[in-house]
Amino acid sequence: MAIHPLWELYPDIQKDLLETKKVMEKSVKIRNKAITEALHLFFEAGGKLLRPAYFLLFAQIGKIESPKKMHRMAASLEILHVATLIHDDIIDDSPMRRSLPSIQATFGQDIAVYTGDFLFTVYFHLLATSTKSFHTIEMNAYSMRRVLVGELDQMNLRYNTQITMKQYFQHIKGKTAQLFEFACFEGAYFGGLSKRQQLLAKRIGYNIGMAFQIIDDILDYQATEESFQKPVFEDLKNGYYTLPLILAMEGHHDEFAPLLNKKDALTDDDLRYAQSLILEYGGISRAEDIAKMFTTRALSGIEKLPDSPQQKTLYQITETLLSRRN
Amino acid sequence: MAIHPLWELYPDIQKDLLETKKVMEKSVKIRNKAITEALHLFFEAGGKLLRPAYFLLFAQIGKIESPKKMHRMAASLEILHVATLIHDDIIDDSPMRRSLPSIQATFGQDIAVYTGDFLFTVYFHLLATSTKSFHTIEMNAYSMRRVLVGELDQMNLRYNTQITMKQYFQHIKGKTAQLFEFACFEGAYFGGLSKRQQLLAKRIGYNIGMAFQIIDDILDYQATEESFQKPVFEDLKNGYYTLPLILAMEGHHDEFAPLLNKKDALTDDDLRYAQSLILEYGGISRAEDIAKMFTTRALSGIEKLPDSPQQKTLYQITETLLSRRN
Repeated sequence: MAIHPLWELYPDIQKDLLETKKVMEKSVKIRNKAITEALHLFFEAGGKLLRPAYFLLFAQIGKIESPKKMHRMAASLEILHVATLIHDDIIDDSPMRRSLPSIQATFGQDIAVYTGDFLFTVYFHLLATSTKSFHTIEMNAYSMRRVLVGELDQMNLRYNTQITMKQYFQHIKGKTAQLFEFACFEGAYFGGLSKRQQLLAKRIGYNIGMAFQIIDDILDYQATEESFQKPVFEDLKNGYYTLPLILAMEGHHDEFAPLLNKKDALTDDDLRYAQSLILEYGGISRAEDIAKMFTTRALSGIEKLPDSPQQKTLYQITETLLSRRN
Repeated sequence: MAIHPLWELYPDIQKDLLETKKVMEKSVKIRNKAITEALHLFFEAGGKLLRPAYFLLFAQIGKIESPKKMHRMAASLEILHVATLIHDDIIDDSPMRRSLPSIQATFGQDIAVYTGDFLFTVYFHLLATSTKSFHTIEMNAYSMRRVLVGELDQMNLRYNTQITMKQYFQHIKGKTAQLFEFACFEGAYFGGLSKRQQLLAKRIGYNIGMAFQIIDDILDYQATEESFQKPVFEDLKNGYYTLPLILAMEGHHDEFAPLLNKKDALTDDDLRYAQSLILEYGGISRAEDIAKMFTTRALSGIEKLPDSPQQKTLYQITETLLSRRN
């Protein structure tokens, strides 16, 4: 068992993430061997375990009562994340995820539906057995609800060429920022930080999540299939009109309309043409400025945290993460 | 707002179910109007609210502290049930549910995936805000997990002509009996009944659930589309080989094999021929005997409950429910 190389420079958190991963592996063992094996491969393929990591780092700024329960909470966050990824892949009909065939490509959408559902129950179970705080349970329920309402919003926005920046922000808040926000907040809460620091953690998580998703959306227009471990132009093909496109369309709607009206029938040439238009009209560079803004806010939030090894790690990791360009 | 006519003879429980339904309606209100409306129609189309009803009746044998929380718990059980129905309809590609187009037929499978997921979060949220018992949360997580493991098992058994009675029982236990069992048990627990009575409630729920599902499976071979509010022969077409077929195949495997090997390419004539074979080899009557056995066990369990109006209602309702033949 190994975890993402991102953590090699941070042996303390690396150790905790390894424990977290053990909890994840153990919690998905069921009599259906094919599913267990598929999830095992999925975990091995190396997500960065960002949500558990942020949770753990914030918790460790404070005082941890039970490291075991902390690892269970951390695992629950990643399991919830993976559940939504598996269901997202059904929606997008994605062939790949983390350089592996997606669950739905390997086993079909039926198994993918139930595997995601099963992971929701694992999440729920891990949570129920790792906290004695009803407030935590309630917050989790609320957070999970927000994520799903975000996903449903997204469906409404597909192929909508009139999508506004505000709608886009609302959508990525639900889809991505919500869980980062919650991981940081829950960590601060779990570590017994002050109410004020809990709110700070929440804000930091929000800004990280927003920057993270915008960068992801920028990369979808930039990466080649080799440099990025998932296919490119997926958003455009699937009708998710993200920030670079939204910004490029301002004042140039007529040029994009004939392309976008082809919906999922866009050819590779169309996609390349769209890419060149987005570049030309500054969609990429303006999106990068906005990502930068969220990154700066996240980092200056982290600077306000109590001076500690965890605070330093949070700063470095966040800086590394949000400067990734592939 | 109305509820199923089944409850007209029982005004007390009818009133509670109406309250339960109000909680359900309220808890699914989100900014996505199409989904809210679809769920509203779904609830209106009149499920029998059996799981909430069993929960409530068992709880009321004991002592209820907060009727409001009781309605929330009852609603959570039905919401969980509806979530699994919506996802089941994706798997089976079902056009209809409760005489209405299914969510997936109306909105597509993408919305159906997220709507089911959303309902899991509603379930979770209702639960988190209606109990202060961690044991309840844990039991719910465990029960939900069992339901999903059951669903995954079922996928493994599809189109398996070697399916045994034992596998069938294991599968319907997870798919149906688990939630009935849990509804009864949770009611007894919530009402503060003795440990012994809680276990009795669990056993009663198990027997009701098993009988209920076997009857449902028998009906799939008998009903016409008019008499039954969902399409017929669905199980056979979808590769779910249920008890009447399993029993009829004993000793006649060779006669069924050429038919079943057509899998989902079975024609209407094939289906009618399969039906006649099942009837001829006593598959229906033997399955009815087994359903009868579970029904008898359920009823004699109910007889052992403390003498009370609820006990009488439980008896009558269970008898009515498990003698339905359309």
